[in-house]
Amino acid sequence: MSKSTDELFKNVISHAKEYGFVFPSSEIYDGLSAVYDYGQNGAELKNNIKTYWWKAMVQMNDNIVGIDSAIFMHPKIWKASGHVDGFSDPMIDNKDSKKRYRADQLLEDKIDRYSKDGKTDKAEKLQNDMDEALKAEDLPRLKELILEHEIADPISGTRNWTDVRQFNLMFSTQMGAVADDADTIYLRPETAQGIFVNYLNVQKSGRMKIPFGIAQIGKAFRNEVIARQFIIRMREFEQMEMQFFVRPGTQKEWFDQWKAARLKWHLALGTDAAKYRYHEHTKLAHYADAAYDIEFEFPFGFKEVEGIHSRTNFDLSQHQEFSGKKMQYFDPEVDPETGKPYGNYIPYVIETSIGLDRMFLLTMINAYEEEDLSTEDKQDSRTVLRLHPCLAPVKAAIFPLTKKDGLPEKAREIMDKLKLDFNIQYEEKDAIGKRYRRQDAIGTPFCITVDHQTLEDNTVTIRHRDSMAQERVAADQLDKIIGDLVSWRNVLA
Amino acid sequence: MSKSTDELFKNVISHAKEYGFVFPSSEIYDGLSAVYDYGQNGAELKNNIKTYWWKAMVQMNDNIVGIDSAIFMHPKIWKASGHVDGFSDPMIDNKDSKKRYRADQLLEDKIDRYSKDGKTDKAEKLQNDMDEALKAEDLPRLKELILEHEIADPISGTRNWTDVRQFNLMFSTQMGAVADDADTIYLRPETAQGIFVNYLNVQKSGRMKIPFGIAQIGKAFRNEVIARQFIIRMREFEQMEMQFFVRPGTQKEWFDQWKAARLKWHLALGTDAAKYRYHEHTKLAHYADAAYDIEFEFPFGFKEVEGIHSRTNFDLSQHQEFSGKKMQYFDPEVDPETGKPYGNYIPYVIETSIGLDRMFLLTMINAYEEEDLSTEDKQDSRTVLRLHPCLAPVKAAIFPLTKKDGLPEKAREIMDKLKLDFNIQYEEKDAIGKRYRRQDAIGTPFCITVDHQTLEDNTVTIRHRDSMAQERVAADQLDKIIGDLVSWRNVLA
Repeated sequence: MSKSTDELFKNVISHAKEYGFVFPSSEIYDGLSAVYDYGQNGAELKNNIKTYWWKAMVQMNDNIVGIDSAIFMHPKIWKASGHVDGFSDPMIDNKDSKKRYRADQLLEDKIDRYSKDGKTDKAEKLQNDMDEALKAEDLPRLKELILEHEIADPISGTRNWTDVRQFNLMFSTQMGAVADDADTIYLRPETAQGIFVNYLNVQKSGRMKIPFGIAQIGKAFRNEVIARQFIIRMREFEQMEMQFFVRPGTQKEWFDQWKAARLKWHLALGTDAAKYRYHEHTKLAHYADAAYDIEFEFPFGFKEVEGIHSRTNFDLSQHQEFSGKKMQYFDPEVDPETGKPYGNYIPYVIETSIGLDRMFLLTMINAYEEEDLSTEDKQDSRTVLRLHPCLAPVKAAIFPLTKKDGLPEKAREIMDKLKLDFNIQYEEKDAIGKRYRRQDAIGTPFCITVDHQTLEDNTVTIRHRDSMAQERVAADQLDKIIGDLVSWRNVLA
Repeated sequence: MSKSTDELFKNVISHAKEYGFVFPSSEIYDGLSAVYDYGQNGAELKNNIKTYWWKAMVQMNDNIVGIDSAIFMHPKIWKASGHVDGFSDPMIDNKDSKKRYRADQLLEDKIDRYSKDGKTDKAEKLQNDMDEALKAEDLPRLKELILEHEIADPISGTRNWTDVRQFNLMFSTQMGAVADDADTIYLRPETAQGIFVNYLNVQKSGRMKIPFGIAQIGKAFRNEVIARQFIIRMREFEQMEMQFFVRPGTQKEWFDQWKAARLKWHLALGTDAAKYRYHEHTKLAHYADAAYDIEFEFPFGFKEVEGIHSRTNFDLSQHQEFSGKKMQYFDPEVDPETGKPYGNYIPYVIETSIGLDRMFLLTMINAYEEEDLSTEDKQDSRTVLRLHPCLAPVKAAIFPLTKKDGLPEKAREIMDKLKLDFNIQYEEKDAIGKRYRRQDAIGTPFCITVDHQTLEDNTVTIRHRDSMAQERVAADQLDKIIGDLVSWRNVLA
């Protein structure tokens, strides 16, 4: 059953579509590039991931609260945060095809080609030259490299390039009806700023004491030039971010704590720890004094899933400067060194930021298995999503063995009780074996079959997804059996 | 305690801010018009309303599934739906102030003034004239009415008006990096179209049989000219919509069923039925063959909270025409009249559409009470949010009676067990009475006090929000007591 990793990734994508997890957006209109819709099973899985994060961050920590700030924000915020001036990619146009490309992407493609052709030296040198130019934001140098390495536009085939220019990744729109002075506003490229500008409101109305955190789940938007790898890089995506406000000087200790806590969150889902690793940022963003990624081993290699960043007091200080409002916190605690209260300061911030869509993809890939069930006599296989029961879109499926003899009615009677607590699916079509396979494919932990014996003694057959083992249990016990397996306590405690 | 309704509304708005329910967006930058952020208690309340809707619609109905489609959609979709050409307001500019107004709004303000001045005849006549002009989309007539009634710009004071023109309410942005041919796309003005364009994908991958529904919760955006009444009309808002696909000819019966079911959903929260009413649309949208609103009595009068619309097959037919993809469903069921299967058809659609933000406001207003607790000896009062326990942001607050003698530790020990299942708040500051008041103000159903007796016999005092009654219970019972009251079964069963 060994598959090439490319093939595995392709299979997961087509499985995601076939079983209602992810559809290309606007598919009947031939799609919208780098935008995806979540189908009936995808929406449930995504909601369950959100719930897990929210419970782990907000419900379990009495010094963290959650908010829900708007996508639209005052345009000055993006000036203060540095996004208006700095949030851009280096772009180059081909004068013949009139197409625009990311300069670093053209160079990376060239590096890949060198590598594939065995020209390792050339690949390495170009990589170093490019990294240097990017770090120095030396746009003319990027163009030089493109010309030196004779990179041609794949469409026109020519090397007739413009200069390299910066292209801002924020989407903008016009707000207000008065055409003459309508404001240009941006769709937020990150949810974090919604937390920073509300930090004082939350701190005061919630009587929060440092250290405390504010969490948020929400959409963000980036006009990515090259959208790639399915839902890994989208133009519309969702983030789960938490900003933790701490006393200056304590950020290192909190950073370490959150770095550990976040990896623990991932591993609590039962994922093989070997598939995760930390990656330390060596070149730090202008606002950070430490940064680690949590990376997961996707079929195409290790990729960032979550970032933990020590953002200093950069954002709050910027907002203080740009808004003219004091962003200070008064800390009444006594500093043992001076014997006086710490007093007023702008807090330092530790951020944990996870891409919900990436986490979704990680979960799908990690759960997906094409399992060989062949015996000596017979070839057989199944595709099963070994999702953690807490995340499974459907918690149990209920099947009447046949469509007659009152079995559908009995099955529905049992379902009607269970559905008050769980997402249950009812299926009566096809043979039981086929129904099992369909539920395996969407990761349903339990299949419950109602047969003639059920009518006599109120017992049912319960079949477990992972082991495929079957057992006979009292229908009255189902609530507890399902409840125990899908309880959030299993991942939170 | 009788307050004017205006005052009540104002008090709810300031309460919402003071207690972390709703903040003006970007407040430190002096706000962004018609956009709001949900604070730490607002986010929880909003999430709970979403959960209630999702459970009632998706979990409880085995023929309804939920999806999560993107805000960005192919621009042709809004051509097909009629929004590019028809989704607009009649606007008029004052040439002196350069300000733009909604023509119908100017007229409505005038009607209000006539009414206040006792000129009922004039008010009525203008109302009729305006309604007629709006129905006929007669823009010149709207201008005539503005001139006839001598309406002046409140800013310039002049009656120097331009013609009335249509102004589209959709926000637009540019997608893609190639400046020359970047696509203009729109922020969706409703979530419904995300369901229509995915209907075949969901039907096929989910093996759905008619009748079936697709539900969705998500953001929508409208560039409202006049944003009013707090979160009643926002530029960024959230909808909870369900489209129910039925066999042509059965739409009336399903319409009636959903109309009743949706009101039942509202009333299950315990709201006084007298505060709700149906409102039948007399002028129907071009796509509808029946439409009712569910209205709630806000302090400023009855207002739509939810709409139930029989949308015919208009949207699916339009998408079939504009996309070139067949939107038909094959119905294998046998028509008793012809003895043959119903076969291929484009389904009819019943829509239920509720504004989440309005539902939020309704919930706040309905729960808000300034309660007089005065006795003969003493003046006293409290502000209490009598939220349904299922919707309350915090399910229980836990207080150590004092900050010493191991009471905080004991309180935290009890909390650590409860927080696995519920959103719990810990508070140790101020006298117990003051802590009760703070929890009343955010609608917490239970306050639990840990005192010296707790250390001896593991009992606690539990105080009920609504009755303010206190009882002594075993700490081990808290899980069950809270669980029973906040169980979703209470509103779903």
